[in-house]
Amino acid sequence: MTDEIIFGKNAITEALISGDREINKILISKNIHTDAKINKIKELAREKGIVFQFVAKEKFQPFAEFNHQGVIAQISPLAYTDLDEFLEKKHQNASIVILDGIEDPHNFGAIIRSCVCAGVDGIIIPSRRNVQVNSVVEKTSAGAINHIPIIKVSSLSYAVQQLKDSDWWIIATDASAEDNYYDIKYNNMNFALIMGAEHAGVSKTLLKMSDFKVKIPMMNNFNSLNVSNAASVIIFESLRQRLTQHNL
Amino acid sequence: MTDEIIFGKNAITEALISGDREINKILISKNIHTDAKINKIKELAREKGIVFQFVAKEKFQPFAEFNHQGVIAQISPLAYTDLDEFLEKKHQNASIVILDGIEDPHNFGAIIRSCVCAGVDGIIIPSRRNVQVNSVVEKTSAGAINHIPIIKVSSLSYAVQQLKDSDWWIIATDASAEDNYYDIKYNNMNFALIMGAEHAGVSKTLLKMSDFKVKIPMMNNFNSLNVSNAASVIIFESLRQRLTQHNL
Repeated sequence: MTDEIIFGKNAITEALISGDREINKILISKNIHTDAKINKIKELAREKGIVFQFVAKEKFQPFAEFNHQGVIAQISPLAYTDLDEFLEKKHQNASIVILDGIEDPHNFGAIIRSCVCAGVDGIIIPSRRNVQVNSVVEKTSAGAINHIPIIKVSSLSYAVQQLKDSDWWIIATDASAEDNYYDIKYNNMNFALIMGAEHAGVSKTLLKMSDFKVKIPMMNNFNSLNVSNAASVIIFESLRQRLTQHNL
Repeated sequence: MTDEIIFGKNAITEALISGDREINKILISKNIHTDAKINKIKELAREKGIVFQFVAKEKFQPFAEFNHQGVIAQISPLAYTDLDEFLEKKHQNASIVILDGIEDPHNFGAIIRSCVCAGVDGIIIPSRRNVQVNSVVEKTSAGAINHIPIIKVSSLSYAVQQLKDSDWWIIATDASAEDNYYDIKYNNMNFALIMGAEHAGVSKTLLKMSDFKVKIPMMNNFNSLNVSNAASVIIFESLRQRLTQHNL
């Protein structure tokens, strides 16, 4: 597999800290101001024996469309986790987020960040019809992607069945659901939360397989919450319940 | 004031529906597929006597960096609301979000969406050191910007003092706060939630003026929730409390 490029100070710092991925080289633009974050990157690179080079800003021209902050790294591709392998481990009060057709890499990146912050245990994406991990996702995730297993599956419905067979509960978001997301008791179960595509929502097949369908109540007759914000609202409600042990 | 350009199907549809802003002209690319949303825009424009034109895609060249979806509109600038005017109205169990130095227009747009979805009553931004309403904000807000007063003030601390003088409670987000965001009882008060800049957080002056400081608990030693996601988590918790009347 060929190397990938990741960019941005946080993304590269987190990749260095996690140590899970092989970084071949770090390029730092000669034109940027050296701040604490750049110094941290240099320090971590030195510790780990990773080459860093100061290069002319022209080297960054191919990446002009990205917000690279003057630093990029050549890195081995993300190692996806296998669902079987994930399920072999013992899980208690664990949670997974399943992305069913998310198209926007910024949304994917923001969801990864929120999942890591809220202690979600893994993220499942399908190998087709969903944005894949790319440089924008890595950057938007602010390095969070190195702190959570990303599980890529060829069939989401097969994966959901595997989860059900392993006694995981399946919760799907659905604007026409009767239950609000806070009506569910997230304590004392392993659950997978399915977030649907920005426009189409969760597919019918997966809705049918779900144990719970939940909606986020919408005021102002304006039903258009960004998918990463919707995911955060629900996963932090599950965390709130777990931390307070209030089952409502 | 000169016209602004807004782009994207949802942003333009919502501007047409709200009727608060004068739309001079709508340009639709000849090259895009006419879908239900485009038909809706044409129908609304006809109803309101607004000109729409089909133009060659070259007309969209100046807007290539934006995700315009083949449709743009020339529109009068957003009319900001005055804080005095806002406070003259009677408010009960109302809420405001104050943005203290948000830089990313996508974050600002997503926060506007979440605020409208959660029934927040207004958004305060400072006239400097914060992203202003622009085409990207309008697009990212998916038209939500037409459903909520945007209050622009020259001094945030003066605005916060005005709110306090009008018996509003001030809640600031602060990563080192003792209280979690769900420890606050949002019922039975008017409150303003201050969200800080992506990196710097809420300024010290505003933190000092706040009645409550709250944090979102972070797992995995990873303290880096995107600001729009953080805002959503807190405002939907306040909505949850109001809808369930559980004060926790």
